[in-house]
Amino acid sequence: MTDQEPNQQLSVTERTRHRRLREQGSTSRDDLDAILRAGFVCHLGVLVDGTPMVVPTVYGVDFATRTLYLHGSVASRSLAHSPDATICVTITHIDGLVLARSVFEHGVNYRSAMIYGTPELITHATAPEALLTGLRTLTEHCAPGQWDYARRPNTKELRATSLLALPLDEASVKTASGPPEDAEGPDGALGLWAGVIPHHTRVGAPEPDPALPPGTPVPAHIAALGAPGSDSA
Amino acid sequence: MTDQEPNQQLSVTERTRHRRLREQGSTSRDDLDAILRAGFVCHLGVLVDGTPMVVPTVYGVDFATRTLYLHGSVASRSLAHSPDATICVTITHIDGLVLARSVFEHGVNYRSAMIYGTPELITHATAPEALLTGLRTLTEHCAPGQWDYARRPNTKELRATSLLALPLDEASVKTASGPPEDAEGPDGALGLWAGVIPHHTRVGAPEPDPALPPGTPVPAHIAALGAPGSDSA
Repeated sequence: MTDQEPNQQLSVTERTRHRRLREQGSTSRDDLDAILRAGFVCHLGVLVDGTPMVVPTVYGVDFATRTLYLHGSVASRSLAHSPDATICVTITHIDGLVLARSVFEHGVNYRSAMIYGTPELITHATAPEALLTGLRTLTEHCAPGQWDYARRPNTKELRATSLLALPLDEASVKTASGPPEDAEGPDGALGLWAGVIPHHTRVGAPEPDPALPPGTPVPAHIAALGAPGSDSA
Repeated sequence: MTDQEPNQQLSVTERTRHRRLREQGSTSRDDLDAILRAGFVCHLGVLVDGTPMVVPTVYGVDFATRTLYLHGSVASRSLAHSPDATICVTITHIDGLVLARSVFEHGVNYRSAMIYGTPELITHATAPEALLTGLRTLTEHCAPGQWDYARRPNTKELRATSLLALPLDEASVKTASGPPEDAEGPDGALGLWAGVIPHHTRVGAPEPDPALPPGTPVPAHIAALGAPGSDSA
C-alpha cells in the first residue's frame, strides 16, 4: 500500500489484536482440561528405530492425580525397549474451516493440547493395582458408569493389557476460533464472501449390537452418551 | 469355559472371523484415498532435538501425482535443520465408541492412515512453481473452487509460506467398524447392553464473517461445503 491514511496505523493495530485473539496459546489448566474432556482419542508420538511414529489411541484422564492414561500396544512395545524416552501426546478438536478473502489468511478453527513426558509402562506383572486404576480411568473417561456396568477384566485379560501413564506436567494448549481476519485492509473491498464452515462432532443415539437379545434395555448411563442431534463439547 | 459343546469350535472360528472384520489393515489405494479425502487436518510427527513432536496441521492431496502437501511452519523449521529426516503423517477419523459386555472388548471404530517418508521442503526461494502448485492443492482439497475465487498469494505472502511435499509411497491403513465381538461365549449371557455410540462429523451451514457487507452472496462452491444436517464422508 502506498497511501498511508492517518487511521491505517490504528487499523493495523486492530488487525494485530484480532490475530492474537483468533489464534492463541494458553497456559490455563481449565483450557487444557476442557480439551482433554472433549475427546477420547489422541495421537501418540513415539520414537521407533530413530523415526517418529504417530498412532491414534484411546486415552483417559485422572484429573485428581493429573495423570493421562494411554492404551497402546505398539507404543508399549516401543517403550519397553527405551523406557526413558520422551513421548508427545496431541489431542485436537476441529471446529471449522476458515475461508478468508485471501488464500494466505485461510485457516482452521481448532482446540489442541500437546503433552510431553516420560511415561510409565503399567502392566499386570509390574503394577496390577495401577493397571486396574488406569483401566477404570480409561473406561470412565469414555463412558462414565461403564466400569460398574460391564464385566471387568479377568486375570488373563489383564495380562494381555498394558497402559502408559503420563503426568500432565508439561502441556501446551493452542486454539484458533472466530472469523477470518482480512476484513480490514484492501482485501475487505474485494466483495468476496468470507466466513467459517463449522464442523461439529455429532454423537448419535446408541446402536445396539445386532446380536443382543430383543428387548435388552439401554442403561441410563449409555443413553446419556448420545442422542439424535446431540453434539459433543 | 469348562463345558465344550460340539458347536463351540465353530463359534470360536466365527468370532475370530468377526474380529478380523472389525479391525483390519488395508493395502488398498482406494481405502487410503477415501481416508485422505474425508479430512483436511493430519497429525504430523517430526523429530525435534531427539524427541518426537506431534502437531496438527492442514494437508491437501494431489491424487494425480500421489503427493501429500502439508502446511506447517514448526515442522518446516525442524526439517530445515534435518532435511533427510523421515516424518510420519497420520490421519484419523473417529466413527464411534464400541461398548462391549466386557471392558476388555471395548474399543473405537475409526479409519486411519499413516504415511511415512522424507518430505521435500518447498519455499518460494527454492521452488516457486511447486509452492503455488502445493498451495492450490491444499486450498482445493479443503474447499474445491476456492483457489479461483479467493485472492491468490502475492510475493510477500509466498515468501512467508513453506510447505512440505510427501510422496504417498509408504502408507498403511487401519480401520475398525461394526459392533462389539463378545456376543458369543459366556459374556453374551450376562444380559448386558452392548453396541456402538456413533460419532459423525457434522459440517454446518457457512457462517458469514460479521464484517461482511450485508447481502454479500454465498458462492455456490462454498454453499456446497456445508448445509444443516449434512455429514462429511
